[in-house]
Amino acid sequence: MNKKPIATIKDIAQKAGVSLMTVSRALNNSDLVTDETRDKILKIAEELNYKANISARSLVSQKKYSIDVVFSTMSSDTSASFMVSCLQGIYQTLDKDYSLVVKDLSHGFKHFNLSRVDGVILVSQQQSDDAFIEFAHNEGANIVVINRTTCVPNTINITVDESEGAKLAVNHLISNGYKKIAIINGPQNIQSSTDRGNGYTVALAEANIDVNVSYSQIGYFTFSGGYQAALNLLSLENIPDAIFCTNDEMAVGALKALEEKDLRDKIAVIGFNNSDISQYTTPALTTVKKPIGEMAKQGSDILFSLIRGKNQSQFVHVLDTELVIRDSVPKK
Amino acid sequence: MNKKPIATIKDIAQKAGVSLMTVSRALNNSDLVTDETRDKILKIAEELNYKANISARSLVSQKKYSIDVVFSTMSSDTSASFMVSCLQGIYQTLDKDYSLVVKDLSHGFKHFNLSRVDGVILVSQQQSDDAFIEFAHNEGANIVVINRTTCVPNTINITVDESEGAKLAVNHLISNGYKKIAIINGPQNIQSSTDRGNGYTVALAEANIDVNVSYSQIGYFTFSGGYQAALNLLSLENIPDAIFCTNDEMAVGALKALEEKDLRDKIAVIGFNNSDISQYTTPALTTVKKPIGEMAKQGSDILFSLIRGKNQSQFVHVLDTELVIRDSVPKK
Repeated sequence: MNKKPIATIKDIAQKAGVSLMTVSRALNNSDLVTDETRDKILKIAEELNYKANISARSLVSQKKYSIDVVFSTMSSDTSASFMVSCLQGIYQTLDKDYSLVVKDLSHGFKHFNLSRVDGVILVSQQQSDDAFIEFAHNEGANIVVINRTTCVPNTINITVDESEGAKLAVNHLISNGYKKIAIINGPQNIQSSTDRGNGYTVALAEANIDVNVSYSQIGYFTFSGGYQAALNLLSLENIPDAIFCTNDEMAVGALKALEEKDLRDKIAVIGFNNSDISQYTTPALTTVKKPIGEMAKQGSDILFSLIRGKNQSQFVHVLDTELVIRDSVPKK
Repeated sequence: MNKKPIATIKDIAQKAGVSLMTVSRALNNSDLVTDETRDKILKIAEELNYKANISARSLVSQKKYSIDVVFSTMSSDTSASFMVSCLQGIYQTLDKDYSLVVKDLSHGFKHFNLSRVDGVILVSQQQSDDAFIEFAHNEGANIVVINRTTCVPNTINITVDESEGAKLAVNHLISNGYKKIAIINGPQNIQSSTDRGNGYTVALAEANIDVNVSYSQIGYFTFSGGYQAALNLLSLENIPDAIFCTNDEMAVGALKALEEKDLRDKIAVIGFNNSDISQYTTPALTTVKKPIGEMAKQGSDILFSLIRGKNQSQFVHVLDTELVIRDSVPKK
């Protein structure tokens, strides 16, 4: 292998006319150098094709130049569109020196070595993830939890008001004249399922509509689960006139079942998330927009403030959902 | 923070009644210990809540316990279903001690420090990725390239015969009586677009069907791109009777356009990949199965053989595609 001569921080300091300490601070993104100086030094570093010896830098700065993105599960319980929106949102905010390490908690976390990374973004889907949050705190790790509200104290938490989003969906059905409203929900161990289910129940109660227990189905957040759950609903004696699906993939499955039973024009369907697919179903899907990418970006930004040693005054950030009206909930 | 007493490899050796060297070999997955011994030692390590000091282990074993998964791009040119199938396939084969680092080449690779990882899986989509493959070879990195055939010598390469898959699709249209066959393809800088496009052209030529240049559209591998490209085709004076979409997302968009123009029953559509969505469109999508998860798993398995120092006798592995017949190509 041909090895090129390696530029050192001495070379950079010489060319920039600054001290070694200044170069080191600039390369480590310290707040003690001005943006102007940092930019100048980074430019020279690039010209000299400087490559940090990460291990050596780590010893000095104690930075690992790496963050963990931890999902509750990377199985099909996590839809592809959700996972990729999170990863893209985080990746976009990442400094190019940083590595993004992807993990899940499906085999526990006792083997995780958090001293290898500067911080963790937990994309939390389950209450049982709280044990990991406590573990991370005990290890002294920087951690930001997104997607689920956690009760673990002193945890920075960026969430979406899932229950309020579900109420938006159900109220939209009610205000369009629907009363026999079913729900196809995700697995019950997933927090957003419980939250969206609560929103559904509250919206019905507020409108004085009785909850019909046979109208509550589990669709596992997948196309196939939504399809099967809708078939179950359509086999009831008293079929619903509207179905609230707690993600768009299940709504796609439900629309397929309605199409097969020739009921597409008779039963309203509403989804959740506003995934890319929702514009391209027939009818185009009315849904609730969850700002997944934005949540991921904010989580990443706040994590990097923590890594730079900035204290956070606000622990809980709740982002809004928004109704997106298309064609799948016609006026009754 | 309360710190627990940390078990060392000495504690493990004592409890297992073996030498330090044996423990070290077992923990580093060396071929020099039997599976039985390794299992025993790993079990004791777990009981003692042993956590490797990765930096110290790295110094001894020169292993980094980390692999890079590099995509050409993590933008929307890479569909969510494809990206997640790759990540899941690799993650499943990963030893739990290993970290999976996700990167893309959209900002170049000069800042990549391959000495931080034990190996690289490049999920290659573009010919321009060859520069990165050469870079990895020059750095002496273990690398396995999946998804695209590369001409860089001595590169382990796991691909799918995309051109053959496209021929399967087009021949299926022809044998069902279609002759005016259009193609909605991905961006031309993506290798699989070129390969699938070649398969399309060859299949038409073999059937003595002239290629109509106005039947060739770009749909950027997205729902919206497929939709717009189909609208373009439907605005032609002489509209096609069948559309080959080179991924399933574009086929979903095309079906939406056909539905809007009331041509769903008149024009056949065929997709590519056999993504989850393809069962839940109306009509259910006939498509070509590309074994994405399998390709990723094989790539990961072979990379870990390389990391363990096993030489590979076979450089190129080509996986088969398969026609999946559903309802979107009725007999004419």
